[in-house]
Amino acid sequence: MSGEQELGITESKEHSTGEWYAEVVQKAELADYAPMGGFIVTRPRGYAIWERIQDHLDGWFKETGVDNAYFPMFIPESYLEREKDVVEGFDPEVAWVTHGGYDELEERLAVRPTSESIITPFIADWVRSHRDLPMRLNQWCSVVRWEATETKPFFRTKEFLWQEGHTAHRDEDGAWDETMTRLDQYERLYEDVMAMPALKGRKPEHDKFPGAHTTTTIETLMPDGKSVQAATSHYLGTSFAEAFDITYADEDEEDQTAHTTSWGLSWRSMGALIMLHSDDQGLVLPPTLAPTQVVIVPIWQEDNKEEVVEYAADAAAELDEAGIRVNLDDRDNRNPGFKYNEWELKGVPLRIEVGPNEVDDDELTLVHRPDGENSVEDRADIGDTVEDHLDTVYAKLYASAEETLEGEIREADSREEILGTIGQHGGYVKTGWCGDEDCEEPIKDALAAEIVMVPLDRDEDPVHDDCAICGEDARVTAYWAKSY
Amino acid sequence: MSGEQELGITESKEHSTGEWYAEVVQKAELADYAPMGGFIVTRPRGYAIWERIQDHLDGWFKETGVDNAYFPMFIPESYLEREKDVVEGFDPEVAWVTHGGYDELEERLAVRPTSESIITPFIADWVRSHRDLPMRLNQWCSVVRWEATETKPFFRTKEFLWQEGHTAHRDEDGAWDETMTRLDQYERLYEDVMAMPALKGRKPEHDKFPGAHTTTTIETLMPDGKSVQAATSHYLGTSFAEAFDITYADEDEEDQTAHTTSWGLSWRSMGALIMLHSDDQGLVLPPTLAPTQVVIVPIWQEDNKEEVVEYAADAAAELDEAGIRVNLDDRDNRNPGFKYNEWELKGVPLRIEVGPNEVDDDELTLVHRPDGENSVEDRADIGDTVEDHLDTVYAKLYASAEETLEGEIREADSREEILGTIGQHGGYVKTGWCGDEDCEEPIKDALAAEIVMVPLDRDEDPVHDDCAICGEDARVTAYWAKSY
Ligand SMILES: [Zn+2]
Ligand SMILES: [Zn+2]
Repeated sequence: MSGEQELGITESKEHSTGEWYAEVVQKAELADYAPMGGFIVTRPRGYAIWERIQDHLDGWFKETGVDNAYFPMFIPESYLEREKDVVEGFDPEVAWVTHGGYDELEERLAVRPTSESIITPFIADWVRSHRDLPMRLNQWCSVVRWEATETKPFFRTKEFLWQEGHTAHRDEDGAWDETMTRLDQYERLYEDVMAMPALKGRKPEHDKFPGAHTTTTIETLMPDGKSVQAATSHYLGTSFAEAFDITYADEDEEDQTAHTTSWGLSWRSMGALIMLHSDDQGLVLPPTLAPTQVVIVPIWQEDNKEEVVEYAADAAAELDEAGIRVNLDDRDNRNPGFKYNEWELKGVPLRIEVGPNEVDDDELTLVHRPDGENSVEDRADIGDTVEDHLDTVYAKLYASAEETLEGEIREADSREEILGTIGQHGGYVKTGWCGDEDCEEPIKDALAAEIVMVPLDRDEDPVHDDCAICGEDARVTAYWAKSY
Repeated sequence: MSGEQELGITESKEHSTGEWYAEVVQKAELADYAPMGGFIVTRPRGYAIWERIQDHLDGWFKETGVDNAYFPMFIPESYLEREKDVVEGFDPEVAWVTHGGYDELEERLAVRPTSESIITPFIADWVRSHRDLPMRLNQWCSVVRWEATETKPFFRTKEFLWQEGHTAHRDEDGAWDETMTRLDQYERLYEDVMAMPALKGRKPEHDKFPGAHTTTTIETLMPDGKSVQAATSHYLGTSFAEAFDITYADEDEEDQTAHTTSWGLSWRSMGALIMLHSDDQGLVLPPTLAPTQVVIVPIWQEDNKEEVVEYAADAAAELDEAGIRVNLDDRDNRNPGFKYNEWELKGVPLRIEVGPNEVDDDELTLVHRPDGENSVEDRADIGDTVEDHLDTVYAKLYASAEETLEGEIREADSREEILGTIGQHGGYVKTGWCGDEDCEEPIKDALAAEIVMVPLDRDEDPVHDDCAICGEDARVTAYWAKSY
C-alpha cells in the first residue's frame, strides 16, 4: 500500500520501462501491492479491463461448444504426482496446505498451479461413449505458482487469474482442430479487442508444455523489444488420456483412447496491453476495453456555468443512450487542466471539451488520448461521430503497434549476427535452425534471448538452408527474442 | 466420482430428503464429489445456473454503484488476527498454507474464509476524503472454511463460491441504505429469478456476524420445513472502520470515521433452489435460470421421419431466433420416452412434442415440467406462445412455494407449543420474545430449532405481549425454525 504520492507519471517509458510500468499500474489505479510479496490487489479500474477480456473470450468459447465448470482449488498431493506418469521430472512449485483449523492434514493439498491432474480424471469418468465427445470444459479461476521472482503486476505474481480449457476428442483431427480454434480466438482477442498485432507459432520441442504433443503460442512484442508469450494452446495427443484413462466406446463398441487439449490465457494479457499502448502521460487503452470510453470536461466561467454544464450533460446523456461508456466530469473543485491530466493518466480514449464557444456554435471538441489530435465536430449525431472517433483511436493504436512489429522482425545467419541484432535492436530475429536444443544455449547464455517460436506449419521451408549456429542443415525457421 | 448408475431418481423427496437431494444433484449432472471430503466439482449444468445467478446480481450491483475487484486468496495470519480487535474470541477454522515449494513460509497464510481483514486495510488506504465515499467493492471468488461436517453439495462444502461486497460510507444513513439496498436485491433475486418467496429480517443480537451492528437476512423455507439463511447483509457500524482506521476528511477538513457494510450470497442459494422446486422425477428449474429452457422431441415412424424432424427443427430455429434457449433432441438411438425422462431429470422447464399429428395440424404440443400439464398450440407465433408458457411455469413454481410458505408460519405462546408445532409441522413459529439468548436454549436443546430472525423494524410491536419461554415482557417477535 502506498502513502501520499505525486500525481502524474514521473518515470520514462523509454529509459526506465520497468519502473514506468509499475508507476502506471499504481497511479492509474489498476492494481496495488499486497502485503505478501508476489501478490497484488486488482482494483476496480484494472478488474474492469479483465472483465471485458473475459466477456469477449467467454462469448466466443460458448459459441464454439465450450461449457464452463468449476473444480476444487486444492489438489491432493497424490493426484499431482500422477502427472509424473506423463511428465518426466515433474516438480511443482506450489503452495501447500498442510493444516485445516488446528489439525494437520493426512495428505497435503496443493493450491492448484493448473488443473490437468484434477480435471482429467473427471473427464475420464464422464466419458463413456463416442457420443460424449467432444467434451469441452473451461474454468475461470486463480492459480498459484510459488516462483520466487520480483513482483510485476499482471506479468509476474505468485497468484494470477486465468482461464484454463480442457477438452477431449475422438481423434487427432478433432483435437488438433480444437487447438487451432482456441489459438485463433486468442489471436482474435489480441487483434480485434486489444489492438495488438500478434504472431502465431509453436514452441520448439524442448520448450513445450510438459506432456504435450504440440504447444502453440501467441507472441506479442513489447516496446522494450521483448516478446510476451501471450496465450498458449496445447495439443496433448494421447499422453494425458493414457495416464488418466480417458477411453470411450466407438461406433463399433471398441475401446478407444481420446485425444486431449488444453489452452489458457492469463491476466498477463492485461500486462502486455498496458505496457504496449501506454505512454509517459499514463495509461492508454483501446476503447474496446476502457471502463470509461469518453470523458466530457465542461469549461466554464461563473457567468456561463449553467449553460455550459447543461450542454455538456445533455451530450453525456445522448452518448450514454447510444451505449457509450461516458463520464461527465463536472467537479467544482478541480480545474480543466487537472481533469485532462487525470483522465489521460487513467487511460480514457476520448476527451470531449465543452466551453462557451462550443455551446454557441452547437459543436463539441474531441481529443484523442493516444496522440492529442483534436477536431471540432457538430453536436448533432454525436453518438455516431463518437463511435467513428473511437474506431479511429483503435486503428491508431493498432497501426502504431503494427508498424513497430513489422520493423522488428529481422533476419540473421550467424551466431554473431543474432547477438548483434538482438543486442542492438531487440525484437525478433529469424534464422535457419537445425532443431537441436544445444544450438539455443550460446544465445541464451550471452543475451538471455531464446527461440520463442517456430512456424505452425511443420512443412514450411526454413528461411535459410543452414542452422545459424551450427551450420548443419536447417529444418525450420527459428524466431529468436528476449522474452518476459 | 461415480461408476455406472441407474438412470432416474430412486429416492423419495418426502421420505428421504437428504438422499433424494444428493441423487438429484448427481444425476442431473449439477455436481460430483471431489476426492477430498468437503469438496465438490461443479459440472457445466450446475455452473450454468450459478453463472445466471451471477449475471442477474452483478448487473444490479453495477447499476447501483458497485465496482468489482479482486483481492489475494491468501491472508497473512497477522492480518487475520487483527480481526481480534473487532471480534472477541475470533477463531478462524481455515486452511493454512505453510509451505511454498520446498520452503516453509515465515508466516502462515490462511486461504481466505472471508476477506474483511485484507480488504478493509486497502479501503482505509484508498479513502482520504469525503469525495472518495461511498466506496463500494465486490468480488466473486471462492472461500474455504475448514468445518468438519458431512458434505452436501452447495449447502455444506469446505470450499464454496460466493460474492462478498465491502463498502464504506460517510455516516450511518449511507451505510444503512447500502445494507438495505443489497438485502432488497437479494430478495429480488429470490422472488423474481429463483421463484422463491423470501422472508426478510434481522438476526438476533447473539447471532449477528461477529463485529456487526446489525445482520440482516433473507430466509427461505425448504420442503422439509427447515429455513435456509439465503443471503446476509451486514451494517457493521464503525467497528471495522475503527479497527482498520478508515477515516476521511469531511467538508470542513475534519477527520471522521467511516461506517461500513458487508454482504454476501453463496452457491447455497443454488442448493436451496434445487431442493425447493425439484421432485421425484428429478431437477425442476425456473425458466429464468434453466440452461436449456425448451426441449423439442420429435416422434417419428420411418415413413414420416423426414417431415417430422424438419418441422421440429424449423420450430427450434424459430425459438432460437427469438432468444429462447432451445435444444432439439433428434437422437436416433433413444426413444421419446427415454428422452422425456432424461429432460425431466435434467430440469428443462418446457417440453415440446412433435409427431405427425402436430405436423398435419400445424400445431405443437407443449408440456410443463413441474406438473405435466400439456396443451396444443398453433405453430404460428410460437416464440410468443412459448414465452407465455415459460412465464406460466415460473408462476406455477412461485405460487406453489408461496402457498407452502404461507401455511408454514404459525404462532405459539409457550415453550411446549413451540416444540409441539415445530416438531409436528416444521416451518416457522412466531412468538413473543424478551430478547434474552438464554430463552433460545431450551428449544435448541430439545429440537435443534432456533430463532432464525426477528423483524427488520426495531419498533414493531411483538406478536404477543409476553416472551413465550420466560414469560417476561416481550420486546420483539421471534421467528423460530430448524435451519440448514
Ligand atoms: Zn544447429
Ligand atoms: Zn424470555
